[in-house]
Amino acid sequence: MSRWRVDINCDMGEGYGVWQLGEDEALLPHISSANIACGFHAGDASVMRRTVRAAAARGVAIGAHPGLPDRAGFGRRRMQVTPEEIYDICVYQIGALLGHARAAGVPLAHVKPHGALYNMAAADRALAAAVAAAVHDVDNALTLFGLAGSVLVSEGERAGLLVAAEAFADRAYEPDGSLTPRDRPGAVIADPAAAADRALRMVVDGVVATSAGTDFDLVADTICVHGDSPHAVRIARKLRAVLESAGVRIAAPGQP
Amino acid sequence: MSRWRVDINCDMGEGYGVWQLGEDEALLPHISSANIACGFHAGDASVMRRTVRAAAARGVAIGAHPGLPDRAGFGRRRMQVTPEEIYDICVYQIGALLGHARAAGVPLAHVKPHGALYNMAAADRALAAAVAAAVHDVDNALTLFGLAGSVLVSEGERAGLLVAAEAFADRAYEPDGSLTPRDRPGAVIADPAAAADRALRMVVDGVVATSAGTDFDLVADTICVHGDSPHAVRIARKLRAVLESAGVRIAAPGQP
Amino acid sequence: MSRWRVDINCDMGEGYGVWQLGEDEALLPHISSANIACGFHAGDASVMRRTVRAAAARGVAIGAHPGLPDRAGFGRRRMQVTPEEIYDICVYQIGALLGHARAAGVPLAHVKPHGALYNMAAADRALAAAVAAAVHDVDNALTLFGLAGSVLVSEGERAGLLVAAEAFADRAYEPDGSLTPRDRPGAVIADPAAAADRALRMVVDGVVATSAGTDFDLVADTICVHGDSPHAVRIARKLRAVLESAGVRIAAPGQP
Amino acid sequence: MSRWRVDINCDMGEGYGVWQLGEDEALLPHISSANIACGFHAGDASVMRRTVRAAAARGVAIGAHPGLPDRAGFGRRRMQVTPEEIYDICVYQIGALLGHARAAGVPLAHVKPHGALYNMAAADRALAAAVAAAVHDVDNALTLFGLAGSVLVSEGERAGLLVAAEAFADRAYEPDGSLTPRDRPGAVIADPAAAADRALRMVVDGVVATSAGTDFDLVADTICVHGDSPHAVRIARKLRAVLESAGVRIAAPGQP
Repeated sequence: MSRWRVDINCDMGEGYGVWQLGEDEALLPHISSANIACGFHAGDASVMRRTVRAAAARGVAIGAHPGLPDRAGFGRRRMQVTPEEIYDICVYQIGALLGHARAAGVPLAHVKPHGALYNMAAADRALAAAVAAAVHDVDNALTLFGLAGSVLVSEGERAGLLVAAEAFADRAYEPDGSLTPRDRPGAVIADPAAAADRALRMVVDGVVATSAGTDFDLVADTICVHGDSPHAVRIARKLRAVLESAGVRIAAPGQP
Repeated sequence: MSRWRVDINCDMGEGYGVWQLGEDEALLPHISSANIACGFHAGDASVMRRTVRAAAARGVAIGAHPGLPDRAGFGRRRMQVTPEEIYDICVYQIGALLGHARAAGVPLAHVKPHGALYNMAAADRALAAAVAAAVHDVDNALTLFGLAGSVLVSEGERAGLLVAAEAFADRAYEPDGSLTPRDRPGAVIADPAAAADRALRMVVDGVVATSAGTDFDLVADTICVHGDSPHAVRIARKLRAVLESAGVRIAAPGQP
Repeated sequence: MSRWRVDINCDMGEGYGVWQLGEDEALLPHISSANIACGFHAGDASVMRRTVRAAAARGVAIGAHPGLPDRAGFGRRRMQVTPEEIYDICVYQIGALLGHARAAGVPLAHVKPHGALYNMAAADRALAAAVAAAVHDVDNALTLFGLAGSVLVSEGERAGLLVAAEAFADRAYEPDGSLTPRDRPGAVIADPAAAADRALRMVVDGVVATSAGTDFDLVADTICVHGDSPHAVRIARKLRAVLESAGVRIAAPGQP
Repeated sequence: MSRWRVDINCDMGEGYGVWQLGEDEALLPHISSANIACGFHAGDASVMRRTVRAAAARGVAIGAHPGLPDRAGFGRRRMQVTPEEIYDICVYQIGALLGHARAAGVPLAHVKPHGALYNMAAADRALAAAVAAAVHDVDNALTLFGLAGSVLVSEGERAGLLVAAEAFADRAYEPDGSLTPRDRPGAVIADPAAAADRALRMVVDGVVATSAGTDFDLVADTICVHGDSPHAVRIARKLRAVLESAGVRIAAPGQP
């Protein structure tokens, strides 16, 4: 039995009506957790049904991917929302996906906030607590995915939830463990092999090399593949191959 | 112990954002089932949280009130939707309210479709089957509310659901048991006492007087109070008083 | 100078937020009129700005393409709307595109209803009159595009508008001049050369061959290229080449 | 002829679908400019048609009142939008109201941004420039309403627009001329007579008393009545009566 395990997650079901986005079918064989859009920033009831069933058919764990109520901005624009509003929209969206999971006869496994909501909840303790409370109150057996080292992780734990710390194989890190902003050179790692090697170090050594050349200690329970990257499928395939070759088992959090 | 029982239901939580509608707080003491809007035709995540908790605090049973995706038309405009779309949007909306019910620690008891969806599912067997399947697949212990005598009732039963046949105390009936169209004189019964007397006959005698003067046999498990009527509170109060005075117990379906 | 002229129109700007649809840039060189989505069934304020400017840069005439308020259904689902509602949403959407046309310093030339609104207005005189009134009341110099032979054409003329009768090169026609329903075999003509030949007969001979082998007299002021066809660019290029080779001038209605 | 003149403006048409808000009919006799919601934060195509015609029937000048794309939050929540997005959504909304003004045969007179958009454009020069450019590019004869002393006023002037500096009779001011935040005691002046006296000093003396007791020099071309105040009608009536008694003429900017 392998010593190491990690989850590979990817956002899924981000089409809307006639509009398609992402290569869900091609990505599913390579991941262990699918974060499924819940109709606020992307997705709709029909896309959700299809995505839940496609993921379930591949044995991929199903999670809710709630976003801000901003479809035109794909949930990427920060909004001035109160913790109470965050709680309410997370309960609503988790519930909506729970409905589709029950209808498909599969369990809902986790929740990962999307876009601006993810970033806001990583940095603001009150918003993080609101997200954690929403997850807890709908089903306290759900795992909360949050940025490794962020207040979303600590607030999730404080709420009594299982939490999966998330790391990014295809993003550069600063010496303090934060992500290098996307507008800086080298912020995004396009080479699948380089990204896979970084993921392997995270899982096996518990560190990530930073832009200063130093190592930063990092716990990575789940590694994100950006589904909207043009190379998403290649990155996911390489990532899984490199990790499995090194004896890392790929499995969703909480699975045996 | 009383020989007769019936449920009194009312639509609730039909505000949206800053906009308010209905007199939920004044109606809750008089009803036994609240049909709570789920964000498609009315309601939003915050209104849903507040409405679920207000109903629960009064001991009123909580139901999902899914509608067509038409907020601008309040879900009253028929749309050309497929059974599959109906299934999907019902699963989504029932799930969203289930999320808020779980977060409030109260059970979800029933589902009643709204507006055009209710009317379409009362008349079209394929749409009725889609609604029933959605309810069944999210939670087969939920009670489905449908127009007495309609295919929504028969499709609900065929799906193995508990079904509550709904009647209208404040609407005239035709000799064939259909509702007199609203644009006909006398279609709406504005006098609370007259409406209450009609409800009493439905419950105790199992009949309703029709526009032709004849009686029509009618099973009424639940009686609807229109929350958007200007006299909703007076009608609900009178209805409950008259029924209880006659020894009819007011209780949600499925409650002991 | 050529004896014949015809317009080639195509729907444009049907992306939304992050979602893209159609190959607008590749189609623009081949068409003379762009029907630009106005934010109800597709498009948004930013897509509209970019599409107006792209069309203007190619010398393509700009039209509003209003749809039903149903983004999730892409405006393809019939809805139970009143003539007054149709009037209001057409005025709104034409105005919104007029705003973007003025901001770009280019004239608004025409209006073509979209999807279910187009089909409903082709068959229902009251809805057709509402569309025509909306166009007239915003700017009575706009040209209204409607299905050749339909009440939308006659109501547009009755309102005093310039009207362009529209025909479809890639669709089969029935002996009575109606379009063969899409679910019948042969309803869609996939071969660009065959479609172009049909268009040429429409323009030069004023007839279209029907599914019965007979000819139907048809006035075609504008020919539609379906932008959502997988072969849209090939069809548009072939159509224009064949027409121009035969001496047909391609120009938007109302242009000198 | 009077030496002084000022405009009284109020937000209007902020219902949506079945939902109503504000007392437009009761307010119209007391104001000279109506800021009409354009469907993003409130209002819809039918509400806009009715509101434009109601205002026109009273001789009240018609303006567009564009907001952020956030109906659930009534356009009051700040969003992370770019100047380009602001430009686009303002062009769209001004155009949509222009459509309804043309359909009603009345001129569009002004533009006043709503809620968070108003506040953001008052403080951020790039956003202010985007709003001003949108107004200018749709119709450079429109008057832009902005907070007196703000960058929205200066950017409007820089764009070559007529600008109306707006002041608030029912809000306290700080010694630097900013509005006292709403959560401070005394920030809102509920007494109609006191509010009217403050407005009179603004118009006649060009000053407003601040929370420190000092006077602040303030140019007020237009005075806002908050339509969502429970006392809006009483305040508007008193304001107009006091101003007219003192010889101040109430007229929209740009009117003779």
